[in-house]
Parts: sequence; structure tokens; C-alpha cells
Amino acid sequence: MPDLYFTPGPTALYFTAEEHIKTALKTGVVNTSHRGQQFKDIYKACADNLKLLMEIPDSFHVLITSSANEAWERIIQNCVRSDSYHISNGPFASRIEKIASQLQKNTHNLKVQDGKVPSLEEIKVPEAAEIITICLNESGTGAAFPLQLIEELRNKYPDKLMAIDGVSALPVVPVDFNSIDTIYFSVQKAFGLPAGLGIWIVNDRCVEKAQKLAAEGVMIGSYHQLPEMVEKAAEYQTLETPNILGIFTLAKVAEDMLTKGILAIRREIDYKAAILNIAVEEHPQMEHFVKEANVRSKTVSVIKTDFENTQLIKYLKEKHIHIGTGYGKYKPEHIRIANFPTHSKEQMEMLVDLITAYRG
Amino acid sequence: MPDLYFTPGPTALYFTAEEHIKTALKTGVVNTSHRGQQFKDIYKACADNLKLLMEIPDSFHVLITSSANEAWERIIQNCVRSDSYHISNGPFASRIEKIASQLQKNTHNLKVQDGKVPSLEEIKVPEAAEIITICLNESGTGAAFPLQLIEELRNKYPDKLMAIDGVSALPVVPVDFNSIDTIYFSVQKAFGLPAGLGIWIVNDRCVEKAQKLAAEGVMIGSYHQLPEMVEKAAEYQTLETPNILGIFTLAKVAEDMLTKGILAIRREIDYKAAILNIAVEEHPQMEHFVKEANVRSKTVSVIKTDFENTQLIKYLKEKHIHIGTGYGKYKPEHIRIANFPTHSKEQMEMLVDLITAYRG
Repeated sequence: MPDLYFTPGPTALYFTAEEHIKTALKTGVVNTSHRGQQFKDIYKACADNLKLLMEIPDSFHVLITSSANEAWERIIQNCVRSDSYHISNGPFASRIEKIASQLQKNTHNLKVQDGKVPSLEEIKVPEAAEIITICLNESGTGAAFPLQLIEELRNKYPDKLMAIDGVSALPVVPVDFNSIDTIYFSVQKAFGLPAGLGIWIVNDRCVEKAQKLAAEGVMIGSYHQLPEMVEKAAEYQTLETPNILGIFTLAKVAEDMLTKGILAIRREIDYKAAILNIAVEEHPQMEHFVKEANVRSKTVSVIKTDFENTQLIKYLKEKHIHIGTGYGKYKPEHIRIANFPTHSKEQMEMLVDLITAYRG
Repeated sequence: MPDLYFTPGPTALYFTAEEHIKTALKTGVVNTSHRGQQFKDIYKACADNLKLLMEIPDSFHVLITSSANEAWERIIQNCVRSDSYHISNGPFASRIEKIASQLQKNTHNLKVQDGKVPSLEEIKVPEAAEIITICLNESGTGAAFPLQLIEELRNKYPDKLMAIDGVSALPVVPVDFNSIDTIYFSVQKAFGLPAGLGIWIVNDRCVEKAQKLAAEGVMIGSYHQLPEMVEKAAEYQTLETPNILGIFTLAKVAEDMLTKGILAIRREIDYKAAILNIAVEEHPQMEHFVKEANVRSKTVSVIKTDFENTQLIKYLKEKHIHIGTGYGKYKPEHIRIANFPTHSKEQMEMLVDLITAYRG
């Protein structure tokens, strides 16, 4: 059996990705100039397909970065003059607050217990804060930020920019783009591509903010200043030579997802999450780290085991199935299982059967 | 005939690259965690092979960036407190000065005529400048910066950091690492890889400078601060999920280049440059843009044509051979031809024969 990756990322490639990479190698995609028409067509297809797939309004721009890390940096540089507000309910959610501190912004940090999501009342955004940052799918702990709460925050704080970390959530989680200003993801999670590419989606409020900061003399970066990126993107161009192979493969995988249908993909994710959840609940030696079912991630399950997790990981590996360890301090006590569009129902059923029968 | 790319980058893949990419797809390289041993082994092989290939002393660190653009930004952020000095003898050489300005440094710019290289006497680095930036191979004009002059500058200004743009020069140009402090390249040029990866090589003087700046409260970036990158790299780790496929392919291509031998590669480059140079000199309608033969790039030839260059480009394209247009303002009047390790002597001979016989 070929190896099966349920790791939270890098993970299994989307089942069509390998063929698209081979096509790229055969058809000159990797040789073409990033200033030529062939590249423009690739970038346009990528942006168009992503917009269709996630119902992204035309008022948003689809930009190319190297990683979600870069998107964190560019958002803070371009959208924050002095004050930022961060909802930090896990290691990944917290990372953008660290970046804002490193960029010498005045950060306001709501530290939330791991595995939890704050209530609307707990979220008190100070007047000075220009942006609210939220992690949609905290893959370190398995907590999913409720879409309803994003909408409520938008209504409560209409003047603040809403910046959403969509890594390991997009395109599965149906984000309402009217409630947000910017969102980003890296491709090695739910899109199932080789790592080394990030997508940064921004609206004009973000661009105008960056222009305003630049006019005031605030430093907004160098070769990846937001206004210049947007200007180039309007002609399907980038400022540097980008990961053309990655952009091509993403365009093709998004097209394949459109052909399958995003609703079908989301239904399958629901089914796979449901059978995994039941298996965990019925297992005498396992429990969900996130107690409240309504804020539990469907795409990355974080499970506490009352036995040595390395035993189970090794047992599955012998059967060519790879799952993740816990993240950071939870490394020895959690396992993490990804449920991405590339994972078939049959694959998840097989994994669930093995976990159900396993005793530590 | 399959398409042959003599474009200056992206260009033809190194002739073994495609097989390595396919191996990566088959053996889990694209699925593996960037925190696991498999990735550490890949990064170590990449760094070790590059060090052997270019005789990089062990006192240098091999870091992963997303592009040469990123290296420009990180060098200025981490190695310049206030003043930088730039030798700008073409569009690519000038780019780092623009980035330093955008990062609000006080830049001192020696503007040199396109296609020329300044003399030691013309280079007057002010006391305040902390760094000297040089483009080894200005692929916009075809000017090669003399290695001898780098050494003379090192001796004349031992206290300044020497930052070298090695894009489209490495590993062909035999840089003496004792004369420099940092050099960087992107992989889609002479290494012949798909775009989307940069390599940034730094010594401890750069790291110490960054530490000093950080201690003084100077902003040195966020997720890619030099001291943190070096600390991670010591364990063959990166701060973000990097382009693992690219790093693997680079490790393998560098290994193949070692097997062939860097001297053999350089001899072939010399031969191919020589036959192309003679063809240009003997052609009644062509001339080298760089007049002085000793500062003419061997890896990217920039040729002025006294006919419409698009005719020749189209003529060659019909024969499945791709060459570059002029860069920037020279787009209509120059052609550019890459001479990288992947281009065989036979391929260059074929191109030279076609050019020799061509009349516009």
C-alpha cells in the first residue's frame, strides 16, 4: 500500500496534484518567464478558480506570498500604524501577535485557554486597535473559531480591519467575505500541494490603509508592499519570480475541486469528521482535547490519549498510515489527524477502524 | 524536438532535475513534516553539497529564503543600522538600493553606466556606510563584476560588510568567500530549478551585526530575523514551512554537479561562452552590449541587434529554441542568451550555428 498521510501539513497531496506537476514539467510551465503571457494566464486561472471555489467577491485581490508567515508580516506592516488586537487561543493564533511585537507595534493580546474560543463579551477590543486578528482553525489545539462570532465582531467593531488566518481551514470552512478584510492560507494543508506558497486575499480597505500609512511615512515593507502587489496582481504579475509550479498546481487543484463541487467536498469532510468523532468518543482511552463540540475543528482533530501516543503512531506507520503528534508542549500526549479534501471516505473509514480496535 | 530554453531565468531545468522531482513525489519528500528527521537530512544534504560545490568555508551559514528579493530585504534589515553603499551598474544591481530606501535607510548610490563596471578609484565608500552591495552578474546588461575588484574593495574597506548578489552567477563564478560576508541566489538561474526558492549564505559578522542592531532596538524583521534563522539552521530547521521540494531538488542537483565536477562545468561554460562570443563578433548585424571583454558575463550574454529582435526570437521559437528579449528599456533592441550548466556544448553549438546563419 502506498503511504497515507493524515498529518496536519505537509500532508497527502491532493489526489490530482502529482499529475498536474508532471504536466507542468512537460509543458514548459517551469521554464516560462514570469513576465510572459503563459504565466499571466496561470495566475489568472489560479485567482479566478479560488474566487469561484470560495465565493470571494470581486472586490478582493488574490496575492502571492511565500508562506502564511509572510502574510502575517505583510498584514502587520501594511495594515497597522500603531495598535493591533489579537485573539490568541493557541500556538498558531498567537504567532501573529509575536510578529506584530517584533515589528514594534503596540499589541493588545487576548490570551485564551488552549482548546477554547472566547465569547463575544470576553472580546474587548480597545479603541486604539486598528485590526483584529483571528485564527479560524487553530491546528495546534483543534479549536475552530465560530463564523457567527466573526460576523458579530464585524458588526460590533465595523471600523476595525478583520484579519483571518485561514491556514488548514480554506477552502473547507465557508467564510463570509463580507465579514472580513483579509484572509490567507498556505497550500500544504487543505489544498494538498507541496509546501512553499502562500495565498493572501485582501480587500481595498487594506490597500487604502497601506496607502495611507505610506503617505504618512510609516514603513510598509520593501519589495512586497501591499499597494504595489495589488497593482501588479491587476495584470496577473508578481514583483519577484514566484513559485510558478505551485501557482499552476493550485490553479489546477482548485479547478478539480470546482468540478467535484465545494458542497460535495464539505459534505465528505462532515462525514469523515463525524465518524472520527464517534470513534474518539467511544474509545475508552481517548478524548477530544476541545470539549465543546461546536468549536471543534473538522479539518484537524486533536485527540488526547491516555497511553503513550508514539505506540499508536508507530503501529499505524507499520501499516503505512501517518498521523501527527501533538503540537508543541502537547507533543507526547496528543495525536492530530487531518481531514482534508484529498482524504477519501474509504481512507478515513480504514483509519477509524484501526483506531477503534487499538488499545494502548 | 523538445523545447530548449536559453532564457536567462526561469530557464531550462538542470538535466537531472525532473527525475529528482519525480523521486520526491514518489518517496514522501513532499508529504514529510518540516520538523522531522527526513527534512533535516534533506536540508543538511543541500547545505553540505552547496558548501562543497562552491568551497564555502564552514564559518558561513546556508539559509533558506523564498527568493533573492527576500534576501535583499533581509540583508538590509539585519545588517544596516543607517547607511548603505550600493554599486548600481544596471537594473538588478540597483534593486537593493531601492529596497534600502524603502526600509528608510540612508543610501549612498554609485550610479554606473549600463554595461560598465566602475574602477577601484571611482568607488568611494563613505565612512558612514556599513555595507557595500555588488551585483556579480548584472543580467539586465551582461556586465560581470570582477572578482579581483571585490578583493581590492575588501582590502580597502575591511570594516564594511560585503554583500554580493550571486543570482545567475553561482555556482559558475568562483567566488572567494574570504572577500565577502554574504551572498545569495535564486534557484531558477544557473542551478536550473523551478522558481520559488532562494539561498542566502551569511557569515558570523552579519549575524553579530544583526544581534547588535536588535540589542539597540533597531527593527530587524519578524519571522525571518537573521539570528533566529541561523539558530534554526544549526539544527537544519526553518522558521516557516519551506519549499521542501525545492530544497530536495537543489540538494540533488548540487550532488550531480559535484559528481560532474565544478571544474568541468566551468570549462564547459568557458567553451560555450567563447563560441557564442565569436559568433556575435563575426556577425555583421550584432554586437556585444558590454564592450570590454574582461567584464562581460559568461552566463548571460546581452547582445545588441541592428534588426528587430522579435524576428530572430520568433525564428528560433519555430525551431523550439527560446532566447530572452532585452531587459527593461532594452527589451526591443537586445537579445539575452543564458549559458548555464544545464546547457550542453551540443545545444550551444546548434544555437550558435543558427545565429551565425541568421540575417535580420
